[in-house]
Amino acid sequence: MNQLETIYLEENAVVILDQTLLPSEVKYLHLRTIEDVWQAIKILQVRGAPAIGIAAAMGMYVYMKEVARTASDFDALAAAFEKGRTYLSGSRPTAVNLNWALARMSDVFESVKGKPVDEVIIALREAAENIREEDINVCRSIGEHGAVLLKPGMGILTHCNAGTLAASKYGTALAPVYIAQERGISLKIFADETRPVLQGARLTAFELHRANVDVTLICDNMAATVMSKGLIDAVLVGCDRVAANGDTANKIGTFGVAVLAKNFGIPFYVCAPFSTIDPKTPTGAEIVIEERDSEEITDMWFSQKMAPAGVKTYNPAFDVTPAEYITGFITEKGILKPPF
Amino acid sequence: MNQLETIYLEENAVVILDQTLLPSEVKYLHLRTIEDVWQAIKILQVRGAPAIGIAAAMGMYVYMKEVARTASDFDALAAAFEKGRTYLSGSRPTAVNLNWALARMSDVFESVKGKPVDEVIIALREAAENIREEDINVCRSIGEHGAVLLKPGMGILTHCNAGTLAASKYGTALAPVYIAQERGISLKIFADETRPVLQGARLTAFELHRANVDVTLICDNMAATVMSKGLIDAVLVGCDRVAANGDTANKIGTFGVAVLAKNFGIPFYVCAPFSTIDPKTPTGAEIVIEERDSEEITDMWFSQKMAPAGVKTYNPAFDVTPAEYITGFITEKGILKPPF
Repeated sequence: MNQLETIYLEENAVVILDQTLLPSEVKYLHLRTIEDVWQAIKILQVRGAPAIGIAAAMGMYVYMKEVARTASDFDALAAAFEKGRTYLSGSRPTAVNLNWALARMSDVFESVKGKPVDEVIIALREAAENIREEDINVCRSIGEHGAVLLKPGMGILTHCNAGTLAASKYGTALAPVYIAQERGISLKIFADETRPVLQGARLTAFELHRANVDVTLICDNMAATVMSKGLIDAVLVGCDRVAANGDTANKIGTFGVAVLAKNFGIPFYVCAPFSTIDPKTPTGAEIVIEERDSEEITDMWFSQKMAPAGVKTYNPAFDVTPAEYITGFITEKGILKPPF
Repeated sequence: MNQLETIYLEENAVVILDQTLLPSEVKYLHLRTIEDVWQAIKILQVRGAPAIGIAAAMGMYVYMKEVARTASDFDALAAAFEKGRTYLSGSRPTAVNLNWALARMSDVFESVKGKPVDEVIIALREAAENIREEDINVCRSIGEHGAVLLKPGMGILTHCNAGTLAASKYGTALAPVYIAQERGISLKIFADETRPVLQGARLTAFELHRANVDVTLICDNMAATVMSKGLIDAVLVGCDRVAANGDTANKIGTFGVAVLAKNFGIPFYVCAPFSTIDPKTPTGAEIVIEERDSEEITDMWFSQKMAPAGVKTYNPAFDVTPAEYITGFITEKGILKPPF
C-alpha cells in the first residue's frame, strides 16, 4: 500500500491533501487558522465523513494553540473555544461526524477545566490525535472483518469513494481491499466513476491505482454488464447513515447497484463504523436527502456546456438502499445484520 | 415539434448535423468523400442506428457519383462499389442498420447491372433517398403504435438518444412521445445523461427541450431513485440490433435500466424498425460489442483530466439486454414479442 496521507497534524497546521485537485495534482495544504479549516471543509478540499471530523478536531487544536499565546487563564480559553466550535460546526451543517468530533473536543476541554493553559493545549492535541488514531483502528478493524470474505482473484465493485481519501487510512469500503493486499490476496476492483461529482474516477481510481491495486474504472451504467459477465463477486460500499432497520443512505447510485447485485445474486456489503448506525432514525423514509445544484450535472467538470441551457434536472446527492438489498454491514464489531 | 434536420442529401454531399457539438452549437457538415462519411460515423458526428444507415447509403451515392466521373463502364463501377461498401461497413461494427443499408444499396446496384453509368448513379441516389423516406414513415408508425400505451401525465424514462437526432424524423424511442404530443397528451420524460458520451444530456434533453416536451435530465445512477419514487410508468429505449430470440443490443447502460425496471415492475419497451431484428443472429451472445477508447471515460468532454493517468478502463459501447427483461418491441408492424 503506497500510502498517501489524507490528513495529519503539524505543530501549527492541519495538513490536508487538497481533494479538489485530484487526480491531476497531489498538493498538500497547510491550514494555519480556523478560517482556513472552515473553508477547506466547506469547499470539499477535505471530504468524507471521518476526514471531516478529524479536520475539525485538529482545527480546534491549532486554533486554541494560537489563542493560548495571549490567553492568561482557562476562562479566556473557554470563551474562544465556544466561539471556534460554533464557527466550525457551520462549515457543513449536515455532516454528523463534524459535530461528533467537535463534541469529543468539548468533552476533553471540559475535563481539563481550570488547568493551566499549557496543559489544556496538550490535552486538546492529544484528543485530536486520538480521533485520528481511533479512525485508523476502526477502519483497520472493518478491513479485517471484510477481508475474511475475500479470496484471491475475486472481482469487487465499489461506488463513490470510501477509501483512504475519505478517512485517515484504509477507509471503510476499501479497507477490506487494502487489508487483503497486505495479506497478499490480489483482487480485481471495478470502480464506478460516480456521477455527477466523479468521486470514483477522481478519488477511488486514483488511490487504488497509486496503491498498486488492480483497478478498472467504469461508468456507472456499465455495472450491469460487468456483473452479468461474472466479473463481480461482491459489492463493497461505504455509507453516510444507516437507519435502525438497516435502510442505508449513501452516495446517489448506490441503490441502483444494490438492485443489480440482487438481480445477479451478488452479495452487497455496506462498510461503516458502528457509529454510522443511527438508532434515532427508524427507517430510510426519515432520512432527508440533500438535493444539489443543476450545474453539477449540466456544467461541472466540463469545458463546454453538456446539457441545453434551462433544462430541468433532478440531482439528489444520496439515495436510500432498503435493508432487504443489503447482505451485511461490515463494521469494526464484525459483520452485522439489522436489528443491530 | 420544432424540427431539426438530422441528415439530408445535396448534389455532392451528405449533409449532417454535427452531433458532437450539441447542445452548444447547431452546425451542419458537408461530407463530400467516403472518407468524410466513414470518419463522421466513427467519431459519432452522425450516430443513432437509422441515421447511420442513411449516412452510409447517402455516402455510397456521393462516393459512386465521384467514381462515375472517371469510370467507363459498369465493371469499373462494380469494383469501386465493393471497395467502398467494405470500407464503410467497418466504421461501426455493432450497428446492424449500417450493413442493412449497405446491402440495400448493393441490391439496387445489382438490379441495374450492365446499365449505363448515369442510370446507375440515378438509381443509387433514389435508393438512398428512399431509405431516408422509409425511415420517416417507419418511425411515425412506431410512434403511433407506441402512443397507444401512453396516458396523460405518465412518467417515461429513456436512455441514450433514440429521437429525431438518431434518425431522420421522430426517432424510435421518442417517436411515441412526439406522436403523443401531437395528440395533446403531455408526458414527463426523464432522460438518463448516458455516460460516457452523454447522448442523453447533449441530444435527448436538447431535442425534447427544444420541442417543448417536459424533460428532466438525470445522471444514469439516479434511475433507481426515480423509479422507486413512482415517477416512471414505462421505459422506452431504442436499439442497435435485436437477435432472433429478442436479446437486444443497445447503448451501454440499457441492460441496467432493464434490470431496474423489472425490479420495480415497470414495463420496458424497445422501439425499433422491424429491420433491426436480425434473424441471422440467434441470440445476444453472437452480437459483437464494440469497445471504445479509454479517453471517452477519462478525458472526453472534460477541461481537466478526470481520472488518474494510466488507469485501466473498460468501455463497452453497448450492452445486450436479455429478452426476458423486455416487455415488448414497438415496431412499425405493431408491438411484438419474440419469436418474431
